[in-house]
This record gives sequence, structure tokens and C-alpha cells, in this order.
Amino acid sequence: MSRLAAPSAHAGQAAAPDARALREVARARVIYGDTDQMGMVYYANYLRYFEIARNEYLRVVGQTYRAFEESHGLMLPVVEAHVSYHKPARYDDELVISAATFARGAASVRFEYEIHRAHAAGGVGEKLVSGHTIHACITREGRVVRLPAELRAAVGLGDEREPRRDG
Amino acid sequence: MSRLAAPSAHAGQAAAPDARALREVARARVIYGDTDQMGMVYYANYLRYFEIARNEYLRVVGQTYRAFEESHGLMLPVVEAHVSYHKPARYDDELVISAATFARGAASVRFEYEIHRAHAAGGVGEKLVSGHTIHACITREGRVVRLPAELRAAVGLGDEREPRRDG
Amino acid sequence: MSRLAAPSAHAGQAAAPDARALREVARARVIYGDTDQMGMVYYANYLRYFEIARNEYLRVVGQTYRAFEESHGLMLPVVEAHVSYHKPARYDDELVISAATFARGAASVRFEYEIHRAHAAGGVGEKLVSGHTIHACITREGRVVRLPAELRAAVGLGDEREPRRDG
Amino acid sequence: MSRLAAPSAHAGQAAAPDARALREVARARVIYGDTDQMGMVYYANYLRYFEIARNEYLRVVGQTYRAFEESHGLMLPVVEAHVSYHKPARYDDELVISAATFARGAASVRFEYEIHRAHAAGGVGEKLVSGHTIHACITREGRVVRLPAELRAAVGLGDEREPRRDG
Repeated sequence: MSRLAAPSAHAGQAAAPDARALREVARARVIYGDTDQMGMVYYANYLRYFEIARNEYLRVVGQTYRAFEESHGLMLPVVEAHVSYHKPARYDDELVISAATFARGAASVRFEYEIHRAHAAGGVGEKLVSGHTIHACITREGRVVRLPAELRAAVGLGDEREPRRDG
Repeated sequence: MSRLAAPSAHAGQAAAPDARALREVARARVIYGDTDQMGMVYYANYLRYFEIARNEYLRVVGQTYRAFEESHGLMLPVVEAHVSYHKPARYDDELVISAATFARGAASVRFEYEIHRAHAAGGVGEKLVSGHTIHACITREGRVVRLPAELRAAVGLGDEREPRRDG
Repeated sequence: MSRLAAPSAHAGQAAAPDARALREVARARVIYGDTDQMGMVYYANYLRYFEIARNEYLRVVGQTYRAFEESHGLMLPVVEAHVSYHKPARYDDELVISAATFARGAASVRFEYEIHRAHAAGGVGEKLVSGHTIHACITREGRVVRLPAELRAAVGLGDEREPRRDG
Repeated sequence: MSRLAAPSAHAGQAAAPDARALREVARARVIYGDTDQMGMVYYANYLRYFEIARNEYLRVVGQTYRAFEESHGLMLPVVEAHVSYHKPARYDDELVISAATFARGAASVRFEYEIHRAHAAGGVGEKLVSGHTIHACITREGRVVRLPAELRAAVGLGDEREPRRDG
């Protein structure tokens, strides 16, 4: 988790949050419909929480994915998803959902996620799941294009002329 | 359920199947992802089986819903759904899914459903769920229109000049 | 929506909320995973919102369904579900989820639901969906039993000696 | 199903299928409920197809996961899942689901998956998705234990004294 402590990659932009630091972006309450007969959240459903994380991450930085689609005519379909299951989430657990973004060249973006159980008092408890997704930036016709500068800036990815050390 | 035994409503069309008689249209195997922590199929997921029933019902009568959308530019959004839960379906059960169609005026159609558990030997066992859905026929712009004659014929609904006793 | 304005059915218990008046119990944001290719929330997923409504309704009145299961050893499996679809919910819509409870004899309970779209400003907009579910009260062994008095009181159902005019 | 008969990948049993070779184990038809408003199968739902693959893989080799749980009192919870999305699956596509198993030490197993689109004629078309899951073998109390020899043999993993070259 050293990532969480990492200083901003953008020296001189002290006020800007570090896109690569995980930040809490949403809470979700586990319902019966999320569980399976093992009494845990069904393994596919964590990808739903990851989507909630992406949506709310973008909202937090002043964008919405809906507006992104509508104003730019672009989509960010997932090309890879990875989940590590550490401990099970159970019915009625409150989940703390965190996300970070990483550059992946000019035409794709990587989201990192962690899901923790909330304490009854509201604080953040043990880590349940971690993972990532990688998304291409495509037009409605399916052509791969650069991420719009506006989105890169909003998620703190800088512009594409910067050297990249990650991804 | 006298419906099952009912002879065709279209006297003189002896060879035509009665759209209003439930017929088996699909089988489905319950997976973990369908269950919840009560160890039963989650109540919302029976509506997925109902959709399988509609798709396969149309395929059985020589149509597909995809072709219907593409060739006619029409959709059949659901306006009402009803489910009666008799006994729980459980993990790894094989389900026998049956459907029938009923007229609902000129611009809508009603599907009836029953889901039974299959015997290990493949036969039809106890009834688990029954229900219905009602669908409007609309254009892509949302305007309500008559069901195409081709679809009415395919599902055995006759034409709209016939008096209707049901629905 | 006259129900929302309805005065309490329990004269003389002015302080008690009327279980039979719909009250807002939760908000939910529509994600891609809730939609289908028609660009609307998939019809089965409204039953997930109804479950959120039940969970949060119980939490609002000082119970949780989890505690109910654990302390009483009882479950409330659904025996009937009904949904009327008025207008589609779409991706990124914020939904306002309301619920009410009605007595159904001594051993079952009925929940009513309405889902409205939230205005951008946070207020309650147009009605999208309404419906109900009926639940039996059973032991872990599947025996039907009376609703515990504690639950009846919590949801404002009164005790079973009262005459019932509904359900 | 001649595919099955088979004991393991041990030398001297040249005719035996290799557990580590992908084999078709199931077909699935995409329904509306699997898609999202992008008009493709929602990314989480491929993990449902992966579960179908595991269930049917075990059935094909003469086991069922249900029997495994019941007779051994063991479970195989997922500890890692990975999906690569090559091309989108769309509504009403028939999917060809293939799986293979790999040893992962004595107490875990790895499944590999591929999902292809079926040709209209029934043959196997383009690859849509590939991925893997890793599962621990645990008791109902959560203790990690060796995979039962019976399961190892059924899936062609050989016994644990063998040197492992994979996973």
C-alpha cells in the first residue's frame, strides 16, 4: 500500500490530488442480491463495485462518465479486469470503495481499486478485495483515440508529452 | 391449470399450436451467481429465466427477438411483471422453462410462464414459479403501434379482428 | 400518490409513523451494470432496488434484516412480486426509493414500493416504477410462523388482534 | 461424450485428454439481462460464464461441484480472477465456453477459460474473451486443505508428488 502514501507525481502542483493515490469515492451496502449461497458476495459482483468506483471517481473530479460519452462521443470499454479476493464481504456489510487512476499511454487509462469493510462506527476496516481495470478510449465507431486532454487533466494524468513511469 | 389442457382457440386451424398453451421452450442450470445466501435462486433472477423463455419462445415459432427489432424497428418493453414463488430453485437444479402467449389488444402481448424443476432423469418435476409479463409494442421513438401481423401469426395470436376473450 | 398524504391508520398514536404511508428510504445511482442494450434499467433489476428498500426500511425503523435473521432465526422469503413499469430509469439517474408496509394476516407482510427519478437539484421527480412484494415469515426449517411482535411494532403494523382492512 | 472418459495426463496414458488443454464444456445464449447500454455483454457477466464453465467442466469429468461440496464438505472459493476482453459479445449471440485446469500446488487449482462466438452454423468463431481464476480448497470452517485425490484425478491433475511445471 505504499502507493497510498506516495507523494504527488506532479511537483509544483501541490494543490492537485495525486490521481495515483487511492481515494475513497463511494460506499455500498451489500444486499441479498449481491450474495451467493456461500453467504458471501458473488465474485462477479465486485466488478459492479469497481464500476461504481469509476463513476464516482469521475464525479469527484468534476466529470461524469455520462457527460463524457455525450460531449466527446467517446467510450472507455474495459480491455482487462483483475480481482484479488482477500476476505469475503457479507450481507449487510457496508463497503468502502476506493480508486486511483494511472496513465497507460495516450489512448488508455488504468483504474486501481480497493474495497474495505467499514467499521460499525463508519471507519475503514479490513481490506476485502483489490484489483484493476484497463480501458481503451474509443469512438462510437470503435476507433481507438487519445484520451481528451480535459479528461486527462480531470483525473490528474497530466498531458501526454510527460514521460510516464508507470503502467 | 386448465390452461395447459386447453384446446386451440382457433377452431379450424387444427395443425397450429395453441399460443395459449404453455410449452417447454428452454432449460437452464442454476449457478452460484443465481443464488443468494438463503441458498435459493434470488427472487429477481426468475425474471431472467422469463426473458430466456420469451427469446426461446420466439425462436421456436420461427422468429427471433433480435430479428424482430432489426427488421421491424420495433421493441417490446415490459410494462408489467408478476411472479408467484411456490418452491425455491437451488444451486445446480436443472430448470424446465415454459411459456405461452396471450393477446392484449392490438398493441401489446402477454406472456405466461412456469418454471419446474427437472427430474434427474430429465422429466418435469414440481412447479417452482409461475408468472406473467405484459409488453407494449413501440417504435424506437417510443410510439405505441400495432403488433406486426407477422409476429401475431407467428405466436398464434390470430389477427386483431377476432374477438378476444382473454387478457 | 394520495397514499403519501394519508393520515395514520392508528388514531391515538399520533407520534407513530404510518407504516402504510410510503416514505423515502434510500437513494441509488444507476450503473452500466443495471442497464441493458435498450439503454434502460433491465426489468429484473428493479427487484434489487425493492430489496434495498426493504433493508433500509427496516433500518429506518430500528431493525436490520440481518439482526432479524440472527436474533429470531426467522426469514421472510418472498412469495409474490409485482412490478408496474411506468417510465424507464437510465444510466446515471439517481433514484428515490420509497416503501411502505401492510399487514397480511399474522404470518406475512406486504411491502409497497415506488421509485422516482431524482431531480438534479435532489428533489423527487417523475414516478418510474411501482410494485409490491409479499413475504411469508418462516423458521430456518421452513415452518410458517407469526411475525414477531417486535417486528410488527417496529414496522407499525400493530398487533394481530386489530381488525385489518387491507391486504 | 468421449471427451471425458479420461484419466490424467500421466505419461504412458497417451490417449488421455490433457486437463491443461482447453475443451468446450458449455454453450450459452446472451440475453438482454447480460448486456448493458453499450450494447455488449456487461464486463462482470463473463465471470458468470466462467462459473458455468467450471460447473460443466466438473460435470464432464464425472463430478459435480454440488456433490463435491456435499460429499467432501469442501469449497473452492476464488482467490483471483482475470479477464481479457478481446471483442464484445452481443445480444442473442451463442457463446462457446471452454475451460482447462492447471495445478497450483496441493491446495489450489487454476482454471483457464476462453469464450468464442459460435457461427450461425454451430461452429466456433472468433475469440471474445479469455481469462483464468484461481481457487483455494477450504473446509466449511475456512481451513485450507489439500484437494481431494478424487478431484485431482477427475480433473487430470495427477497427484501432488509429481513435479509441477505450471502455475
